[in-house]
Amino acid sequence: MAILCTSFSHSIFHFSLPLSSSGSSPSSRPSRIRFSWRSASMDSGDELRAKFLEFPYVSGAQRNLMLELVSSVETRLGPSLQPCTLPPDIQHFGNPTGTASASLHLRPGLPSSQIDFTLGGWIHCKLPSGGALNITSLSAYLKPSTDAPHFLIELIRSSPTSLVLILDLTPRKDLIFYQDYLKTYYEDTQLDRHRQRLHMLPEVRAYSSPSLYIRAVVSPTAILVCIDIESGEETKMEEIIRDHVSPIAIEVLQFWIESCAGLERHVGEPEIAYLAERDRIIKNKTIEVDLGSSFPRMFGQEVADRVLGALKEYYNK
Amino acid sequence: MAILCTSFSHSIFHFSLPLSSSGSSPSSRPSRIRFSWRSASMDSGDELRAKFLEFPYVSGAQRNLMLELVSSVETRLGPSLQPCTLPPDIQHFGNPTGTASASLHLRPGLPSSQIDFTLGGWIHCKLPSGGALNITSLSAYLKPSTDAPHFLIELIRSSPTSLVLILDLTPRKDLIFYQDYLKTYYEDTQLDRHRQRLHMLPEVRAYSSPSLYIRAVVSPTAILVCIDIESGEETKMEEIIRDHVSPIAIEVLQFWIESCAGLERHVGEPEIAYLAERDRIIKNKTIEVDLGSSFPRMFGQEVADRVLGALKEYYNK
Repeated sequence: MAILCTSFSHSIFHFSLPLSSSGSSPSSRPSRIRFSWRSASMDSGDELRAKFLEFPYVSGAQRNLMLELVSSVETRLGPSLQPCTLPPDIQHFGNPTGTASASLHLRPGLPSSQIDFTLGGWIHCKLPSGGALNITSLSAYLKPSTDAPHFLIELIRSSPTSLVLILDLTPRKDLIFYQDYLKTYYEDTQLDRHRQRLHMLPEVRAYSSPSLYIRAVVSPTAILVCIDIESGEETKMEEIIRDHVSPIAIEVLQFWIESCAGLERHVGEPEIAYLAERDRIIKNKTIEVDLGSSFPRMFGQEVADRVLGALKEYYNK
Repeated sequence: MAILCTSFSHSIFHFSLPLSSSGSSPSSRPSRIRFSWRSASMDSGDELRAKFLEFPYVSGAQRNLMLELVSSVETRLGPSLQPCTLPPDIQHFGNPTGTASASLHLRPGLPSSQIDFTLGGWIHCKLPSGGALNITSLSAYLKPSTDAPHFLIELIRSSPTSLVLILDLTPRKDLIFYQDYLKTYYEDTQLDRHRQRLHMLPEVRAYSSPSLYIRAVVSPTAILVCIDIESGEETKMEEIIRDHVSPIAIEVLQFWIESCAGLERHVGEPEIAYLAERDRIIKNKTIEVDLGSSFPRMFGQEVADRVLGALKEYYNK
């Protein structure tokens, strides 16, 4: 299980979509969530987006958090994004035996935008133990015209009593060589306060990904935690996600939208080339770590190759 | 206390010296420790080295570990090192009130050697609470003619029941941009097994330095841990240092001596310039983090300025 979970750390599953009427729980707080929702009958693209927004199998608090994050991205960045460009069989897929399913939604930024793309998704996979692995994720990558960090959140549930949370503004540069970058985005912004706040909870402990690449790619203020609760206290997990994880995740995303995606930075030509190459490595290495190891086991080699191929084609075009 | 400790994380206090007859405890296992010991009457340099090797105020297990590490460096790298070049008042100093003292010992590598320098030391500082802060450290930097990682160990004791251990082979390159570097030194070597082994102890938990620079400069296999024991069980800490910390530290140092300091790597001119600049940043930033914040409080501004100035002069010449 740990192998499965950890190979998903820092993943490809990230969102940018409107709300589906199906799958929303009574506690979804729809009044706070605004989407560019079309009331007309859904075409295939809409159906795939709706499937995405179902966030099936996860708890109410986790679903609410994802919807809130997606809503923020939609509301603030939607006008800068194109519709999802992934083929339908990459947007939603499953394994032949029906024990695993997933949705992916990738929206490229408009040519005039600083946003490279947003990528969101969920994965559900039944486990031999009788339980299930559920992952929800949202990330957003910026273009090399800015050096501001990327955004990433991922919630990995391998049981109702255990949650791995990865929340980070991923650095675009070597933080040792570029000390001013460390200062600008991580020290002066006091980003670490969110991590410190979360670690005050007794249920929270540091999470160490078995992937050295994952450990190396995240920022020094990255939130990488396991949250474990006692069996039978599942409402406690809901409270922690609702009262602690969600406010932090929303605040970090707001900061990213306003201070990273929303601010123009003047990056020179040599630096653009450096950022483009470093980003290329990050994007390819991330799906290699994610898909290369776990997807074949979850979805079979054929599906894994198809999804990996489609994402690689997009990343390297 | 935490501020004091953490500002010393990744520090300047590191060794490379022969055994002093004073201060060695019965449990020092001298039979396993070989130094290039001079039996003639000690000159000023010898006295300063002897002071260094006293490792005063720390427990037997911690002193033994430091002596063992220093012995390994002396035995294997001694012929490649020059004598300590620091002025006497930088090699040993204290504060005006006598509540804090420290030794530093810096030995440059010979021009023909890959070793830039080794730096070791200890710090003792009485705390207002009645306890004391004791730090022992050893590090070794390589020249830009090789890109192999530097070595660092630091043990920080703020009380008999608490130990912070930092043990790392510090990367010389951006591990994202240089994926082969990550693979060569950290993945293929399975360095992470040492960290995993230590984390199996219930007394061990992850340590997060408040310095974002420190978190960013270490490798993804770095051991950054707090070891906490119950009050009254001080012998337990001795056992943990002797049976768990020491074997790991010795093994990591042996690996570094054989596979990093001892192997010639062919580094091209542009890469040498990159490594030299990155190392310059690391060395200067490290003493800035260490000395800039804590030394004035411990030793007074005058002593802090003198020590900082001498090290900066050496690093930037």
